[in-house]
Amino acid sequence: MRLPLYIIVGLAFSLLVGCSRSADVSATAMEFPKVILIIGDGMDDQQITIARNYLVGSSGQLTMDTMQFRGVMQVQAVSEANPAEPVYVTSSAAAATAMASGIVTSSRRISTFAQTDKDAVTIMELANNAATGTGIVTTASVTDATPASFMAHVNARWCQGPENMARDNERNPRMSYQCTNDYKTRGGRGSIAEQIAETKMDIVLGGGRMYFDQIAEGESETTVLQLARSNGYEVITRRSELQTLPRDKQILGLFVPDLMPPMLRGNGATMTPAVEQFDGNLNVPEAFSCEDNPEFVDVPRLLEMAEAAISHLERRGSFMLVIENESTDEQSHLRQPCGHIGAVAQIEETLRFVLEYAESHPELLVIVTADHGHAAQIISETNVFARQGNSSPGHMARLITVDGSIMGINYGTSRPNFPEGHSGVQVPLLASGPGVEKWPIFMPQTEIFHIARQHLGLKDSLPSDQ
Amino acid sequence: MRLPLYIIVGLAFSLLVGCSRSADVSATAMEFPKVILIIGDGMDDQQITIARNYLVGSSGQLTMDTMQFRGVMQVQAVSEANPAEPVYVTSSAAAATAMASGIVTSSRRISTFAQTDKDAVTIMELANNAATGTGIVTTASVTDATPASFMAHVNARWCQGPENMARDNERNPRMSYQCTNDYKTRGGRGSIAEQIAETKMDIVLGGGRMYFDQIAEGESETTVLQLARSNGYEVITRRSELQTLPRDKQILGLFVPDLMPPMLRGNGATMTPAVEQFDGNLNVPEAFSCEDNPEFVDVPRLLEMAEAAISHLERRGSFMLVIENESTDEQSHLRQPCGHIGAVAQIEETLRFVLEYAESHPELLVIVTADHGHAAQIISETNVFARQGNSSPGHMARLITVDGSIMGINYGTSRPNFPEGHSGVQVPLLASGPGVEKWPIFMPQTEIFHIARQHLGLKDSLPSDQ
Repeated sequence: MRLPLYIIVGLAFSLLVGCSRSADVSATAMEFPKVILIIGDGMDDQQITIARNYLVGSSGQLTMDTMQFRGVMQVQAVSEANPAEPVYVTSSAAAATAMASGIVTSSRRISTFAQTDKDAVTIMELANNAATGTGIVTTASVTDATPASFMAHVNARWCQGPENMARDNERNPRMSYQCTNDYKTRGGRGSIAEQIAETKMDIVLGGGRMYFDQIAEGESETTVLQLARSNGYEVITRRSELQTLPRDKQILGLFVPDLMPPMLRGNGATMTPAVEQFDGNLNVPEAFSCEDNPEFVDVPRLLEMAEAAISHLERRGSFMLVIENESTDEQSHLRQPCGHIGAVAQIEETLRFVLEYAESHPELLVIVTADHGHAAQIISETNVFARQGNSSPGHMARLITVDGSIMGINYGTSRPNFPEGHSGVQVPLLASGPGVEKWPIFMPQTEIFHIARQHLGLKDSLPSDQ
Repeated sequence: MRLPLYIIVGLAFSLLVGCSRSADVSATAMEFPKVILIIGDGMDDQQITIARNYLVGSSGQLTMDTMQFRGVMQVQAVSEANPAEPVYVTSSAAAATAMASGIVTSSRRISTFAQTDKDAVTIMELANNAATGTGIVTTASVTDATPASFMAHVNARWCQGPENMARDNERNPRMSYQCTNDYKTRGGRGSIAEQIAETKMDIVLGGGRMYFDQIAEGESETTVLQLARSNGYEVITRRSELQTLPRDKQILGLFVPDLMPPMLRGNGATMTPAVEQFDGNLNVPEAFSCEDNPEFVDVPRLLEMAEAAISHLERRGSFMLVIENESTDEQSHLRQPCGHIGAVAQIEETLRFVLEYAESHPELLVIVTADHGHAAQIISETNVFARQGNSSPGHMARLITVDGSIMGINYGTSRPNFPEGHSGVQVPLLASGPGVEKWPIFMPQTEIFHIARQHLGLKDSLPSDQ
């Protein structure tokens, strides 16, 4: 006998929901509900395992391994040409849009619907409307795809400043774009930086000063940064200023021109494109360890920004805070294992602080997830370069871990001279806090929006939409 | 407020079905506790997502997605030369040994300790000793690494029959092995097939007849199969015989000479080794779908074997049953996406039956997991072969899914003419049944042994060891 899927799901739910614990935390409305959503960009199960093996060893345990709930999220994107057609590999923009706005869109879009270009209401807009606190912390530019999807609506993620509203790439037409319909003079909302300058976010911390130094659309001298100030933002640019944030102001912290540098780098790393050298005598790439990146100086750690943001948001009681580390993605594109390991290390130290904070704040829901999978894979290092063994046709790193063993890491999604690509694998979903014991183990990425909205008790639309 | 259909249906069910199990089942010792451990060999999160996208679409849901618990398992293996040194990519033999015996060993070993070659007590031995039922169902040879680790103790997984106790591979010395210390005449237990013939398993179903047709060690005419018969096994070789198993006998079902063929294959599949053809005009590999494999004929489905095994084991009340599909591993090694998708499909239909059975057997603990990660990755198919886009340096398949979209699947761990390799990623751990709501979300692979042992109420050693 074969039961239809909904019956099986239903029965599974009866077990999960029907026989739940007596103290049903989520059933009663809590005072000052809070959500902290931590996103490791591209931080899939491979990246987590790589970081665990390197940082604490194969018998070790990460802080994220101690959370209450683990499930998976199906990534979701659609074709711009035909929004009814699923696309199996998503981008940071479409994935963040799913989490920020609860809609499935096409790959470059920032909280806008595929094809129609209609804006989708974000969780931050709903929160601002309810006087719930709103914060974004990122190691990327605050205008980059992930943070942007929570604060802006635009046709293409690259429209980060008023000077970046179109690009014609002859060599690679797929990298061309135009956001000219988003110009304010055409009834749009302007570039991502200009939109951030006009939001009511309580605190926004990250990189991207270069986009705010551009002259705002229709102005002759006024920069986007000045626009932000005139809209009420206190602008900070130095790490030390995080210690003395004015309590009663909106904060915009821009610590670097664009993305922050990774915290770790390889020491004397050699990254072998194996197949190119294969002649029956493949060279074994030198094994290496990670070291502090000397470029990571005067840059606030993710933890420092998170501490400052939480402290600043407490004035609101209830808040929605997104914390992103971008280097998990960027450094895997660039085949730099130490770069993405350092990013997971930053997420780990931030998460330790957040989980400690949660102990005295039972109304806090903590979610850790990734927006999409990535290229890096742990493969065997012991036989890959032996004469008769198999070997990566892509690039291969051999990393000496805390165990003293060597871990082989493969980047095999792109040929040399091209960055590695994303993977369409389902991504980890970790959580602690009220109600997580009742979550289904599998959900689509758009559920993040619904879960956060319900936990914060927010309406599902803005007054203007009703 | 928009809730997905499965949540609405689930909530409705909770109201209708309510709390069918008022008491905490796991807190009290249950009568006739049962464990069914389902292993998808190499069935990592990539393989599950590939199968979901292909079989039910990116908005669909698999049966395994409806289970109560989801966590991850860290795979564990050590170096044979230095058992204190972790190895980050495990094999089916070491991984199955971890689950079967609760020990961490080196890559080719079957329930023996690295270096010392000492035997490790298996969950099946503990169960037999307690008159708890024991069963193995596999699409591989019953002598293959995964099933073997639950039923035998030997130095190297390839020692499947008495004629396979050593191999000298001059071309590839890493593939050489010898189990000569395992000869019975030297005080060993003999080949894997001979050891199975002497076990007290209630039911063993799969392939591998060729190893049982070999002459047993020290015999002139007696085959291993005759040895099994004289030890009390009823031997069956035809699918139809699964319907009429004698209730009071041990059953050994050997349906094919070695491994069973995969259920699905690609129709007109082209698998492009992209980098080899790259000259600025990469050929786009033809997109294809899966079709029934004509070689999959007169072979029992995993479901049929599982049904027969469960029915046979019920005479014992309490039992430990391992159900494995091997094709997830073998077909990824061979870069055959339809092969591993068909294997997940077989696991899915088996799991549906098992979860239905669980509804009337609240004492049943169902675990679904993988032994190790594998090569296959979902990557973008839309831009990989464009002139200026990135492209796989390995092999690439483009598969038309139930959505009507094309899914790109990359195999990039090995160069052409070599099989793809395993990955060291943490593997999915899914479960339903008593006590799973209290499981930690992260555990090492050896915990499977301890969980099964505790659930079945078995001692932690055999009388002979005490």
